[in-house]
Amino acid sequence: MTTRNTEFHEQEIHGGDIYRHPGVCDFSSNMNPLGTPESVIKAAASSMAQISAYPDIRQTRLREKLAVCEQVSPEMLLFGNGAAELIYAYAQALRPEKALLVIPGFAEYEAALRTVDCKCVYYMLSEERDFAAGEDLVDRITEDLDTVLFCSPNNPTGRCIPATVLEKAAEKCSKLNIRFFIDECFLDFTEDEKSTSMKRFLADNPMLFILKAFTKRYAMAGLRLGYAICPDAAFRERVRSCIQPWNVSIPAQEAGIAALDERLYLEESLRVIERGRVFLTEELRKRGYRVFPSETDYLLFRGPDDLWSKLLQQGILIRDCSNYRGLTNGYYRIAVRREEENQKLLDAIDRIKEDTWQKQS
Amino acid sequence: MTTRNTEFHEQEIHGGDIYRHPGVCDFSSNMNPLGTPESVIKAAASSMAQISAYPDIRQTRLREKLAVCEQVSPEMLLFGNGAAELIYAYAQALRPEKALLVIPGFAEYEAALRTVDCKCVYYMLSEERDFAAGEDLVDRITEDLDTVLFCSPNNPTGRCIPATVLEKAAEKCSKLNIRFFIDECFLDFTEDEKSTSMKRFLADNPMLFILKAFTKRYAMAGLRLGYAICPDAAFRERVRSCIQPWNVSIPAQEAGIAALDERLYLEESLRVIERGRVFLTEELRKRGYRVFPSETDYLLFRGPDDLWSKLLQQGILIRDCSNYRGLTNGYYRIAVRREEENQKLLDAIDRIKEDTWQKQS
Repeated sequence: MTTRNTEFHEQEIHGGDIYRHPGVCDFSSNMNPLGTPESVIKAAASSMAQISAYPDIRQTRLREKLAVCEQVSPEMLLFGNGAAELIYAYAQALRPEKALLVIPGFAEYEAALRTVDCKCVYYMLSEERDFAAGEDLVDRITEDLDTVLFCSPNNPTGRCIPATVLEKAAEKCSKLNIRFFIDECFLDFTEDEKSTSMKRFLADNPMLFILKAFTKRYAMAGLRLGYAICPDAAFRERVRSCIQPWNVSIPAQEAGIAALDERLYLEESLRVIERGRVFLTEELRKRGYRVFPSETDYLLFRGPDDLWSKLLQQGILIRDCSNYRGLTNGYYRIAVRREEENQKLLDAIDRIKEDTWQKQS
Repeated sequence: MTTRNTEFHEQEIHGGDIYRHPGVCDFSSNMNPLGTPESVIKAAASSMAQISAYPDIRQTRLREKLAVCEQVSPEMLLFGNGAAELIYAYAQALRPEKALLVIPGFAEYEAALRTVDCKCVYYMLSEERDFAAGEDLVDRITEDLDTVLFCSPNNPTGRCIPATVLEKAAEKCSKLNIRFFIDECFLDFTEDEKSTSMKRFLADNPMLFILKAFTKRYAMAGLRLGYAICPDAAFRERVRSCIQPWNVSIPAQEAGIAALDERLYLEESLRVIERGRVFLTEELRKRGYRVFPSETDYLLFRGPDDLWSKLLQQGILIRDCSNYRGLTNGYYRIAVRREEENQKLLDAIDRIKEDTWQKQS
């Protein structure tokens, strides 16, 4: 068993592991709180009749439909077995020697870069500034870099990198021939996705590599479907060549095709998320926790060191962020869920507080 | 459109592309002729209710069950989004400088090795020997190699590398510190899988890396599930680190768990395949084609140069093998299918022959 523990140590760093914590109410992964749309489940389930065949290696139907939704040409799209596969393929295709990351940030960028022995340097978001990225991020882009990997809204902080900062950063990268990787997986849950997406620079900036996912947007993490938008044909082909041809399963392709019709669901999600985010932020603050301003479907806050284990005792799983580079004990991330679930979380926190109070008095 | 053609050129090399040839009877990919077991389809379809969660990154239930079936320790197993993902991860983890391949052979080994700029050298199977590998394969293993990649039964020839040759080759690799990659994806369809699998050397040879798949065995290529058995913990961890943590989808894990109960189905498959292989071999030979001896669920044969397109006109897709390194025009691979489908193929061939005869006379 020692071997196994060592092998899986790496993988313990993520949220959403309901298999080690069966039956919990999961606030540790950031799915769309409305759950998987019925149409998506149906499309994937009925595709099971075809699984004796290989999946379409060109993803033609999904590609054509998504291209229309994203208003990009079909050729620009690269599909992944979840967005995470494309992070690894990006690293393997580029084989950068030096990369700039924002911390605290999603651990998979660095994990993928490590597979090609890339040196990582960090732009540290400061708690004093509520983890907002500033213009100084642009100054950190220097010609010794091969790539930058940013995430907006950032994970686990929930804040977008300001549009003006991103714009200047991308421009500088283009000038210095530095690949600009931007993870917009959670941007769909923000108010002004359209005006802030880096998609608007695709025509002018061949160094762009925009990562997106169906996983969170349609709550279908178990099926795996992500994509990248990349205007550089040669680099795109290089990324694709690092992945097997049959990487996107038949049910994932069918689910994706069905999901793209779910416009009302997305509108409703935005409303539920905004309401829940405001509610949870206020309520956690009332309870004396420092909550950092978020623009998407999860929140970072500071709480007592034993909050994770105490909530787990009450059947609630939250994300302990102490293993994020740049954070320590006492930082937690929670997904914004539906009203009754959000209330359940607050009730559990209240019970913990009461319990602590009684023990102390 | 020019861009797209270039980008997808690479991917045209495989069989099973029913998306470009809708409605055909597909002899070009080598699935289990019995089709996906009902229990597998059901298990995958009912798992759809859980897809808002991430898949189990440790694949615990599937791992424990497969370990019992394969009689290996659960730790030795590495799961892939299809076996193909593990070929790429193997290449990326090892980053070999020089590899020995058998040709003609499955194109993905070389495609994966190219992503890490590995030089490939080839052991050429000779048609004069009916594409059988001989003892001289062992002589080709020299200390300048970092790895060998073999496939037994080999694709597209359908022949196993003789057990004695494999044994000597593996022993030599162990001595010379050369990784021994062996693809046994089609071994389950042969008569004596148990006695010929390289599994029997796992305890003695840490350089072994055995590749297997659910894809073909249970006709579930559209779901993607493959695995490797690797006794070297450090190398296994290195391979795993080259893949995202969530690579095996929920339906694939559930399908795999259900599939492992399908013993009668496997026994029946073996009977159907053997009967069909003997039948097709004899019947094609009667029609004047040179058919190479196969031990698994597909056959390589020589036929007229226009056979692929003429069969396609009749709604039958076979694998044109002219793009295999080491083969030229006029080599074809067909899957062994069910009796009525095999007969359908022969009838189509007879019609083509008759047609040609009438035009000539």
